[in-house]
Amino acid sequence: MTTRTEHDLLGAREIPDRVYWGIHTLRAVENFPITGQTISEYGDLITAFAIIKQAAALANRDLGLLDPVLCDAICHACDLLREGHYHGEFVVDVIQGGAGTSTNMNANEVIANLALEHLGRQKGDYAFLHPNEHVNLSQSTNDVYPSALRLATWFGIWRLQLSMQALKEAFAAKADEFRDVLKMGRTQLQDAVPMTLGQEFQTYAVMLGEDILRLSEAGNLMMEINLGATAIGTGINSHPDYAGKACDHLRQLTALDFVTAPNLVEATQDCGAFVQVSGVLKRVAVKLSKTCNDLRLLSSGPRAGLNEINLPPRQAGSSIMPGKVNPVIPEVVNQVAFEVIGNDVTVSFAAEAGQLQLNAFEPVIAYSLFRSLKHLAAACDTLREHCVVGITANREHLREMVTRSIGLVTALSPYLGYELSTDIAAEAHASGASVHDIVLARGLMNPEELERVLQPESLTRPRKREA
Amino acid sequence: MTTRTEHDLLGAREIPDRVYWGIHTLRAVENFPITGQTISEYGDLITAFAIIKQAAALANRDLGLLDPVLCDAICHACDLLREGHYHGEFVVDVIQGGAGTSTNMNANEVIANLALEHLGRQKGDYAFLHPNEHVNLSQSTNDVYPSALRLATWFGIWRLQLSMQALKEAFAAKADEFRDVLKMGRTQLQDAVPMTLGQEFQTYAVMLGEDILRLSEAGNLMMEINLGATAIGTGINSHPDYAGKACDHLRQLTALDFVTAPNLVEATQDCGAFVQVSGVLKRVAVKLSKTCNDLRLLSSGPRAGLNEINLPPRQAGSSIMPGKVNPVIPEVVNQVAFEVIGNDVTVSFAAEAGQLQLNAFEPVIAYSLFRSLKHLAAACDTLREHCVVGITANREHLREMVTRSIGLVTALSPYLGYELSTDIAAEAHASGASVHDIVLARGLMNPEELERVLQPESLTRPRKREA
Amino acid sequence: MTTRTEHDLLGAREIPDRVYWGIHTLRAVENFPITGQTISEYGDLITAFAIIKQAAALANRDLGLLDPVLCDAICHACDLLREGHYHGEFVVDVIQGGAGTSTNMNANEVIANLALEHLGRQKGDYAFLHPNEHVNLSQSTNDVYPSALRLATWFGIWRLQLSMQALKEAFAAKADEFRDVLKMGRTQLQDAVPMTLGQEFQTYAVMLGEDILRLSEAGNLMMEINLGATAIGTGINSHPDYAGKACDHLRQLTALDFVTAPNLVEATQDCGAFVQVSGVLKRVAVKLSKTCNDLRLLSSGPRAGLNEINLPPRQAGSSIMPGKVNPVIPEVVNQVAFEVIGNDVTVSFAAEAGQLQLNAFEPVIAYSLFRSLKHLAAACDTLREHCVVGITANREHLREMVTRSIGLVTALSPYLGYELSTDIAAEAHASGASVHDIVLARGLMNPEELERVLQPESLTRPRKREA
Amino acid sequence: MTTRTEHDLLGAREIPDRVYWGIHTLRAVENFPITGQTISEYGDLITAFAIIKQAAALANRDLGLLDPVLCDAICHACDLLREGHYHGEFVVDVIQGGAGTSTNMNANEVIANLALEHLGRQKGDYAFLHPNEHVNLSQSTNDVYPSALRLATWFGIWRLQLSMQALKEAFAAKADEFRDVLKMGRTQLQDAVPMTLGQEFQTYAVMLGEDILRLSEAGNLMMEINLGATAIGTGINSHPDYAGKACDHLRQLTALDFVTAPNLVEATQDCGAFVQVSGVLKRVAVKLSKTCNDLRLLSSGPRAGLNEINLPPRQAGSSIMPGKVNPVIPEVVNQVAFEVIGNDVTVSFAAEAGQLQLNAFEPVIAYSLFRSLKHLAAACDTLREHCVVGITANREHLREMVTRSIGLVTALSPYLGYELSTDIAAEAHASGASVHDIVLARGLMNPEELERVLQPESLTRPRKREA
Repeated sequence: MTTRTEHDLLGAREIPDRVYWGIHTLRAVENFPITGQTISEYGDLITAFAIIKQAAALANRDLGLLDPVLCDAICHACDLLREGHYHGEFVVDVIQGGAGTSTNMNANEVIANLALEHLGRQKGDYAFLHPNEHVNLSQSTNDVYPSALRLATWFGIWRLQLSMQALKEAFAAKADEFRDVLKMGRTQLQDAVPMTLGQEFQTYAVMLGEDILRLSEAGNLMMEINLGATAIGTGINSHPDYAGKACDHLRQLTALDFVTAPNLVEATQDCGAFVQVSGVLKRVAVKLSKTCNDLRLLSSGPRAGLNEINLPPRQAGSSIMPGKVNPVIPEVVNQVAFEVIGNDVTVSFAAEAGQLQLNAFEPVIAYSLFRSLKHLAAACDTLREHCVVGITANREHLREMVTRSIGLVTALSPYLGYELSTDIAAEAHASGASVHDIVLARGLMNPEELERVLQPESLTRPRKREA
Repeated sequence: MTTRTEHDLLGAREIPDRVYWGIHTLRAVENFPITGQTISEYGDLITAFAIIKQAAALANRDLGLLDPVLCDAICHACDLLREGHYHGEFVVDVIQGGAGTSTNMNANEVIANLALEHLGRQKGDYAFLHPNEHVNLSQSTNDVYPSALRLATWFGIWRLQLSMQALKEAFAAKADEFRDVLKMGRTQLQDAVPMTLGQEFQTYAVMLGEDILRLSEAGNLMMEINLGATAIGTGINSHPDYAGKACDHLRQLTALDFVTAPNLVEATQDCGAFVQVSGVLKRVAVKLSKTCNDLRLLSSGPRAGLNEINLPPRQAGSSIMPGKVNPVIPEVVNQVAFEVIGNDVTVSFAAEAGQLQLNAFEPVIAYSLFRSLKHLAAACDTLREHCVVGITANREHLREMVTRSIGLVTALSPYLGYELSTDIAAEAHASGASVHDIVLARGLMNPEELERVLQPESLTRPRKREA
Repeated sequence: MTTRTEHDLLGAREIPDRVYWGIHTLRAVENFPITGQTISEYGDLITAFAIIKQAAALANRDLGLLDPVLCDAICHACDLLREGHYHGEFVVDVIQGGAGTSTNMNANEVIANLALEHLGRQKGDYAFLHPNEHVNLSQSTNDVYPSALRLATWFGIWRLQLSMQALKEAFAAKADEFRDVLKMGRTQLQDAVPMTLGQEFQTYAVMLGEDILRLSEAGNLMMEINLGATAIGTGINSHPDYAGKACDHLRQLTALDFVTAPNLVEATQDCGAFVQVSGVLKRVAVKLSKTCNDLRLLSSGPRAGLNEINLPPRQAGSSIMPGKVNPVIPEVVNQVAFEVIGNDVTVSFAAEAGQLQLNAFEPVIAYSLFRSLKHLAAACDTLREHCVVGITANREHLREMVTRSIGLVTALSPYLGYELSTDIAAEAHASGASVHDIVLARGLMNPEELERVLQPESLTRPRKREA
Repeated sequence: MTTRTEHDLLGAREIPDRVYWGIHTLRAVENFPITGQTISEYGDLITAFAIIKQAAALANRDLGLLDPVLCDAICHACDLLREGHYHGEFVVDVIQGGAGTSTNMNANEVIANLALEHLGRQKGDYAFLHPNEHVNLSQSTNDVYPSALRLATWFGIWRLQLSMQALKEAFAAKADEFRDVLKMGRTQLQDAVPMTLGQEFQTYAVMLGEDILRLSEAGNLMMEINLGATAIGTGINSHPDYAGKACDHLRQLTALDFVTAPNLVEATQDCGAFVQVSGVLKRVAVKLSKTCNDLRLLSSGPRAGLNEINLPPRQAGSSIMPGKVNPVIPEVVNQVAFEVIGNDVTVSFAAEAGQLQLNAFEPVIAYSLFRSLKHLAAACDTLREHCVVGITANREHLREMVTRSIGLVTALSPYLGYELSTDIAAEAHASGASVHDIVLARGLMNPEELERVLQPESLTRPRKREA
């Protein structure tokens, strides 16, 4: 294996010639052998770094700080990364010390060497084009890394929203399909009053719609960046016009409404926006989990359960119990939700631990957010494709449950009074008879009247009391 | 003790004649002897209930469902509660089963008996004015309770924002006072580059300002209510115009922009908005805690610490160490923050546990949110009043740290190059000499030039590199 | 109001003559107006402080450091506190800065003034008997406070174990009552194979038994104390024999096996044992919540649910739905569990935030643990008394569910083979017929044979396959 | 690509002939495309499955239920897996629905096909040796999967303990090296009283030692398994002697003290032991994080910080600040700790969500525990190797801080009294003079006496007050 020699403040090291990363990356690989998961698995983060490095290079060129030839080469290298090439060169562990410095250095080195190669130079010819002096010009990890996290998080939110939207539509389609299926509603797991299965499924669609809106709001917080802050937000060693120009180029490159934070010292140390995004992801998880709990409950059975709906069978459920089928898809979604809720606590800890002018723990915030985003999107996709679209209703059983239900007495209460209705409920409970039969047997209403009061349209919406 | 007899579906019980609550409240007191904290300690919730009961009564009167005389009496009773009277009648434990039914019943009974008394009737004369039939008319716990929680939470958010705003202003005033105090900024607890103490304190003001905005957004989510949903959101047994009229009255009574949720089935079971509020409170807690960590760090010493600022002494710090003074105020704020973060997990659990058409665990959500809101506001107040306003700076020490700092070399890097600067840093570290002296000794810059590059104005903001 | 003047390092203040607390307590009351809950609500902590102050006084007397007359007076004062008197004098907020110093000072002052009064002196005559010089002799908050927390936590654990033991016995009694009630077991909410309701309830008893053991182990960790550590664990200003003697007296006063930690520097800063106790409380909460989830599920209905068991009705469930009864007792237990799980996160944050030689955040750890302990015990009591002892089984319905169940096919699988059994299950599912009828119709087994294979004794335990 | 056809209850699918997994695995791969991480990355779990399948096969053979030839082939296949071969065949996502069924099926299929190949048969020749009928004989996922998780968790605990022990020894060696280095101890970040740096580092060793013991206790809980429980713990379709024999073989194969749980119904649904392990891992994380916070604090500087110790430089700290070196190793350990604490919340959620006879969410419990165990061990290793062993002390600076400290006055307090000492402290604070000089200037002690009282031996341990 041929190698090249690179130097840093600790000395010299041999780097395999075939790789584009350099000595700073090598140090990090040795220092952080934690998860085995590398940045290469987080394509959105690499893309975000490439775009930001490109915006910085263009701003530096505009200000006369960077030779246009070098700028072009850097932009070419960034384009390669954005197209998905060379992701394997991002070999640093995703959980790392140093506040993201190693990820930034990894990016600087890979971009520099790709640019050098593009210019017909050898890898490692940093005298010509230097990872720090040129690729990182006017920048610090402390402004580039948080900005890249924001952009990558935005990508993840957007992707999650697409998956949620598709899931929402699947639920809405089912709601439409089930709009006439009468069933018993339940509060506190006890029979309450009638509703339609369509109303129940519509709920899940509405929930998702609300959460998509909340995600959009949280995503907007990702648009405020601290490029130009350099080391601690004072902008030391940066040109006064750099922050503005870099942000302009970023807007052009992404078509997103990035703005420079009004107070860069604050923006450099603050993780509040990540905490907020994480909190909203937790909200999404909580509600998705509740939805899956409901689906599992409604499909419990086939005989000794509620048996209201059928989830499409996806795999044999048991090696010992012939014919058993389990709600495996909602179950996996529940578990993703639990993971996301745990990740939120990790984010809280990491955000709280920031000290003075920087939060050194942003890598684990990124690790947590990226996994939450990815797993939630995957969970929505599998829930839609492998479960929701195939759900069927046990219509007859559902209607029978309404007919037999003591809860019908609630609908009679405005006509018969609360006291008498309670008495009818008690008799139904004791004798097992239906409310319908008791009312007729007692001669409290005539059949037509009773029929009218108990018709589905009356039961599942507000109505005026008739004379 | 004279008593009156009341009935429910379990039988009859004697109720002391002096109390305004009734049999449903008595059952709940017996069932939930958990925390010893009763609803009476949550004045905002009682006020919210009173306002909502009032709005419901007015809507019922408008629709011809409630006798105006009874409506007036109910409104009079609600006014008494809103003025702060009879809060001691709310004797149900704040953590309770039943999805808030017992709190609603407690309110219905107290209002009914206050109204009866106002009408010159005996307490318990429910044939005339009934807790359920009249006070609770067109309502269910399942729409009244969540709506009251929203209004009470809004009150709490508003109060917290006031405390945060005052704290923000105290930090901003200090930032102004310290605007010329040069000091070393730090990243990862290591000396970085200079900044002003004013910039550092401004950060805390900006953080609070952002969080106030986030709280406003979360507070807005509290404006969407499900009054009119009745049992499960279908509006069963309510008049078609009731939801709209009740919301109208609520808006008039509060001057707040309440709206009826577009899908009442969803709104009745959904706790997403509470999860969101809790998440934002966690965000506030995380950042407040970080701020207090900084204050404790910066005031560490008096001799073997950073010793940059002095917190006003508030109490003797030690029974064994004469003269010791501790940062007790930031410490108590940290602890409130830890409590709030824990409460957020409680809220997540409770929200996730909702099933089908209702979340039965809203009482513990309320308990968690109300404590978080109250304690955070108290923490902000004590932090402002007993700490921030009295902070002083050790100006000479701070300036000396800058002068002695190796971090100054960063400012020279654009002039001397990164390599040479690294070499100067290494010499400074090894010899203990100042960067200033090394640069002059090596003849790298002349004194005037060096002076100009290192002047505070140059160090704490972006600048163009000079020719 | 007559007052006395007291001094501290900040100056002089007037103290009402009627109160036993002094100037240090006054400062703390002013500094920490957070929760409104004072130490007076935590009787176990006051008792623990009284015992430890007594042990310290006796050790000081033994070593000739404290006049026996003063020692006697201090012990008398501690006895008064242990008997439950004067708890109202502990007026400091339970969440406080200062690492517990204010609680310790509050105790020192109250004990000093009670002792002075006992000696016929005026309150505040500290020249004679001083809160610091005598009551706190050889001590620091940093050893007294954590030791008192340990003792108080031990009290709480012991009390919780009693409540859990009683609940366990209630479940075991029900298990015995239901030992012959055959029912369908469920995995993943799907019908699985038969079991008895007794087996199901025995599970809850066994779970509680295991948790009681885990609590005992965690409680044992509370026996290792750092009395004698003084300020930071080096024992500065303490007599070399003090730690041993104080621990001896503590053992005698409590009959508990206290030991002095082998490394006092470590013991003074370490909160690991509290984290462990909190973790075990979380375990208890998790399992208690799961148990209550099951109870709510099994009692769902009355007609559109599983309807297997009946919880005793405790209160009217709804103001709008006549006759509805809800599982309010399990619901309140769930909520306590959610609170405890949240408290555990608070404890983790507080423990992690300790710095160098002390954890300043033990007050919020204490606040969290004490509430978790108290609320869990109350939850167990109400669950036992108001729910478990009154549970009844719907025996016929349960047996019918077994007879109708497709899951019976699992028991036939060893005789008919997995493939054929799967086919029978599929037919049962499609036709709605019973497994029993299908087997007979297909002539696969004769009625006697089938009867024998499906008898309850065979279904609910291991068995040899017959020839 | 040649394929073979396999069947399940949903129909037939083509399986690539080169793979050892079968149709059940294929279904799971399609159903759970969540994390991209497969079981293949969790070697301990594969090993655990192989051992348990082996134990089951041997027990079945002993009972005459399994042909010895098939048993041998199964054992051979399990040996291959235990030697680390064919891990790549475990292609199911680590987060999966179905309570671990898919992992169990994956194992059954791979073992069956390896065994078939060993017997000279074609893959898929299940008529001869069947994944369910033979490999899974007498088993259910519901007893095999939890038992395998316990064994795999035990492996992970053991590995973590080795890493912790090595780290403990590294801290202890440093404690020995620093045993004479006098320094100021701090409480609440304020200067307290002197101690040695050795005492400080010994603390970290002691903490780790305690945590190792707690892990052993938690590890012992992993020894109680539910093999023989089959579907729900009743042992349906298993031989009465199977559970005992399988456990015997497991003990022999592992030399670990496995026992069969006394109540298998309880053991099958209970996740308490996993919650306990997770809680102890959280404890380890909390204390490791606190330790790293201390290391970062003590090494803050180099000039404007505490500057007490030096961590070995591991990589360049900044692209913009020449010569800056950061505490990257403790920082990565902090982040692992935050992850572990978050994972504990995930485990709590998953454990609480178990319903009735099974917890369907054990896969995410496993995922969380395995990552926590692996990452903590890696964190301990990098902390030891790349940080602790290279730490040096700034001895002179430390001693000077003691000499200059006002905290020395505590040592004089027993001689001069608390009042006078407080006065000296105040003068020192105001004038900047040393306690030493003030005492001599006031003529309160003679130099020899003062020297003796302030000698290190006197300051860092208990002592008798001299006459």
